[in-house]
Amino acid sequence: MVDQTPGTNPPVDFRTDPSRYKHWKLSIDGAVATLAMDVREDGGLRPGYELKLNSYDLGVDIELYDAVQRLRFEHPEVGAVIVTSGKERVFCAGANIRMLGQSSHGFKVNFCKFTNETRNGMEEASAESGQTYLTMVNGPCAGGGYELALATDWIVMADDGNTSVSLPEVPLLAVLPGTGGLTRLIDKRHVRHDRADFFSTTEEGVKGKRAVEWGLVDEVVPRTKLEAAAKARAAERAARTDRPRDGRGISLPPLERTIEGDTLRYTHVTCAIDRARGLAEITVAGPATAPPADAAGVHAAGAAFWPLALARELDDLILHLRTNEEEIGLWVVKTTGDADRVEAYDRVLADHGSDWLVREVRLFLRRVFKRLDVSSRSIFAIIEPGSCFAGTLLELALATDRSYMLDGTLEGRDDPAPALRLTTMNFGAYPMVNGLTRLATRFLGEPARVDDLKRRLGEDLDASAAAEAGLVTFTPDDIDWDDEIRVAVEERTAFSPDALTGMEASLRFGGPETLESKIFARLSAWQNWIFQRPNAVGPKGALQLYGTGQRSDFDRRRV
Amino acid sequence: MVDQTPGTNPPVDFRTDPSRYKHWKLSIDGAVATLAMDVREDGGLRPGYELKLNSYDLGVDIELYDAVQRLRFEHPEVGAVIVTSGKERVFCAGANIRMLGQSSHGFKVNFCKFTNETRNGMEEASAESGQTYLTMVNGPCAGGGYELALATDWIVMADDGNTSVSLPEVPLLAVLPGTGGLTRLIDKRHVRHDRADFFSTTEEGVKGKRAVEWGLVDEVVPRTKLEAAAKARAAERAARTDRPRDGRGISLPPLERTIEGDTLRYTHVTCAIDRARGLAEITVAGPATAPPADAAGVHAAGAAFWPLALARELDDLILHLRTNEEEIGLWVVKTTGDADRVEAYDRVLADHGSDWLVREVRLFLRRVFKRLDVSSRSIFAIIEPGSCFAGTLLELALATDRSYMLDGTLEGRDDPAPALRLTTMNFGAYPMVNGLTRLATRFLGEPARVDDLKRRLGEDLDASAAAEAGLVTFTPDDIDWDDEIRVAVEERTAFSPDALTGMEASLRFGGPETLESKIFARLSAWQNWIFQRPNAVGPKGALQLYGTGQRSDFDRRRV
Repeated sequence: MVDQTPGTNPPVDFRTDPSRYKHWKLSIDGAVATLAMDVREDGGLRPGYELKLNSYDLGVDIELYDAVQRLRFEHPEVGAVIVTSGKERVFCAGANIRMLGQSSHGFKVNFCKFTNETRNGMEEASAESGQTYLTMVNGPCAGGGYELALATDWIVMADDGNTSVSLPEVPLLAVLPGTGGLTRLIDKRHVRHDRADFFSTTEEGVKGKRAVEWGLVDEVVPRTKLEAAAKARAAERAARTDRPRDGRGISLPPLERTIEGDTLRYTHVTCAIDRARGLAEITVAGPATAPPADAAGVHAAGAAFWPLALARELDDLILHLRTNEEEIGLWVVKTTGDADRVEAYDRVLADHGSDWLVREVRLFLRRVFKRLDVSSRSIFAIIEPGSCFAGTLLELALATDRSYMLDGTLEGRDDPAPALRLTTMNFGAYPMVNGLTRLATRFLGEPARVDDLKRRLGEDLDASAAAEAGLVTFTPDDIDWDDEIRVAVEERTAFSPDALTGMEASLRFGGPETLESKIFARLSAWQNWIFQRPNAVGPKGALQLYGTGQRSDFDRRRV
Repeated sequence: MVDQTPGTNPPVDFRTDPSRYKHWKLSIDGAVATLAMDVREDGGLRPGYELKLNSYDLGVDIELYDAVQRLRFEHPEVGAVIVTSGKERVFCAGANIRMLGQSSHGFKVNFCKFTNETRNGMEEASAESGQTYLTMVNGPCAGGGYELALATDWIVMADDGNTSVSLPEVPLLAVLPGTGGLTRLIDKRHVRHDRADFFSTTEEGVKGKRAVEWGLVDEVVPRTKLEAAAKARAAERAARTDRPRDGRGISLPPLERTIEGDTLRYTHVTCAIDRARGLAEITVAGPATAPPADAAGVHAAGAAFWPLALARELDDLILHLRTNEEEIGLWVVKTTGDADRVEAYDRVLADHGSDWLVREVRLFLRRVFKRLDVSSRSIFAIIEPGSCFAGTLLELALATDRSYMLDGTLEGRDDPAPALRLTTMNFGAYPMVNGLTRLATRFLGEPARVDDLKRRLGEDLDASAAAEAGLVTFTPDDIDWDDEIRVAVEERTAFSPDALTGMEASLRFGGPETLESKIFARLSAWQNWIFQRPNAVGPKGALQLYGTGQRSDFDRRRV
């Protein structure tokens, strides 16, 4: 048994590009792109399993994520994306069972989270980016394969004897369709719950007209007409996009980073891991230069445009820490830089928000902040002299579990007292998975406070003003600063990581629920539970015995 | 170590009355009742632990539930209820840790569910029954003790050196405040999430003015003025009630039931357990006589009023099955009786809904149906000749995971083909925990279908009409009936119970979320997960080591 736990394997690198894809084929025909899944059986991320029947592991998902990102930035001309299979006789069999069976609990949970995030990103592209995803089901589409289809906005399926959609996790594996499947059946496609119940307990799935009648797919057509039907639907959607048909994309060059000992360095982001204390100190630098004057300037800057570079770097860092540094349970976020310059960049993002590229940059930042929100790590912000928590960077502090802001200056240092600054970007640009801004979530019971804050745009708020405005948790002065933070860090890293994960997931997302918040908060929690249960993962559990011909002897007690 | 698992202990009986209370003192002074928690240390439900510091176990909670029920039915004159402690130096230390430490996973989860339901019922009383709950915190109020306070509508706390509120589960026990605590902090009291984060990781809790400023309690007063303050607040609320000051309550006599072998019998409800097949067949009988003509008749009938008797019997049965029959994973619901008569009863419930007692009966039925919804059992409805799924009883079928309705008659039997009947009670009387009716939840994506159904009140819908209306899942005819049900039952009871629990919890509650649904679906799922984690329940887990002086050595990997 190969342990998927990082530490026993080389670290996972989330950086890739189409020239290195093993499992996906991206082709573009005018305004319609096709993403064909064609998994290489021997191309698993780890040894110990074969990716049969177009099943996937984290490596397959990393390529999908990269393709989805590139389609948004590199291909403004694409208004619709058809997801399909490159195999003759199967669409996708879902997540690879042997890979799951040999993975640690943490690896499985983290893998599902990343998969969910990518699928939510596809839905965001459909809803907000004018790049609509559709699925062409050209063979059996099971489990995670159907969950991938559910994340698209239109599902067309071949009406033949071989092709069906199914969620066989419960009957075959004793786990859940936990990467969004159950939630999307009910809350996205509004499949009637009793039909969803039957469907989710039926290995062989549903095909043909019943699949349409029950709302599991949108249309079925004869196999011979499948491709034409999918292309026609895609063309309809592409015709409605607001993306520029003749726009030129920007390229996303390889992300540069260095790892020296326990320090990771990107251009704007640095991360220093302190293993003895169990924490990672993440420092984000504001822009080094003034922003471009207009949207054309943003296009010219491309991937070097500070907000985009920042998003890419933070995104990679979060994924790296989550997957490769499981024992680092506390992330301490700091910033440096010049608030005026961040405010100037925020003005560009706000003023040119209708430009397709500027919009993509904002949406990417939104996804990165969401990724931070759903990370199962404690997150503290340290707001000290020299920091730059302004506008877009202030979102980082608002995303933390708590923040410490120095009241005044530090003895023996010249830096002025720290200040926070609000910009328009704090009031709607980056909603959380609950659909609310971080400020609205913060003041759930007092929405008027958010309105009050709108009148303080651009003001420098020192510690006492920030505390009064409710923007920071604690504001120790010079005398208490070091001790208070030291004690908070020591206590935090001594608590049970599991209890913290459950607590943080329960406290971070107040207020309304969305498809996304239901997936992360409800479905994931149930999946995590089941991934611990002997009936699934014990030596005689269904996930372990799958494919051996042996049957599980379940503990029949209901919980 | 005493195993709390039923089977190794005598079954738990949920029936009690004030003459048998060991742990609570109920006193009534005009319109204000006081429920004082005064737990008998040696009065635990099971051997192996002492209920020190006013900590509670399931037995304490059963008495609280009984008291809350009786206050509603037996005391119309009570408009406000003060929850407090009968001890000198402590309010409540929460759920008993030793009891939790020696309980099976299933027992812990089920105990938390029942506790949550009782607390939700207190909130329902405050919101809809004109009987508002308040808390007088007269000593340290920790963990489940504070969660109990959070379920009331006003918390007044003594401002002294000894009294604080706290949620020490995470720092002390490596579990969550999972009986509503975290959810109520954020979504009911709107405590800012960073303050909630600090509060939930601080053993010693928060007291005095900070507790008010952070929204953890509503007011603090000097110890000497505590009782007067609580009584004044209670009197204010009692003055606003619409309950009749001089009304006469009805009494709730001991519920009669017999258990013979594997059959439980109440007056209107019978349950036959088939251990070989792993199922319980629950048969609910419609009313034997015509309803009272008016509200006065309902009062005269008292606990014998069919809908109330039905609610009490079903409630007891569900609690019994959940706690004492863990291995019976499938509940098959049937009905018998006369649809006209059920419709007549429903008319009384609808027409006299403003009468306090009729309202209480409806609200009780609503709570019972909700208890069914959140039960971790698969539930099927069998709709056959002789059945009576009309109005209030139709809710039972709508609450199931799926339903089978015979299309036509059975060969060799005289009973006519079965029919369903809608009454006004299906359109708003019994909302689920998501705040929607079962019909609205069923047709989430097609709300117009619910409006269409309103035009079919009182109609007898045969299998094909019911299927077309979307009210049933499958409608086999005579030829397929037995086989189709047999196969469905055999398959269902062969699946992993855990996977079914997670699946059903994910499919049953589409649409909006409420405090209640967040507690059951999100917080409970996280708590279930943590209750499986070695860091909490392993031999070196915090829950096991609590009180031994030993420290847990946590697996530091984040999940």
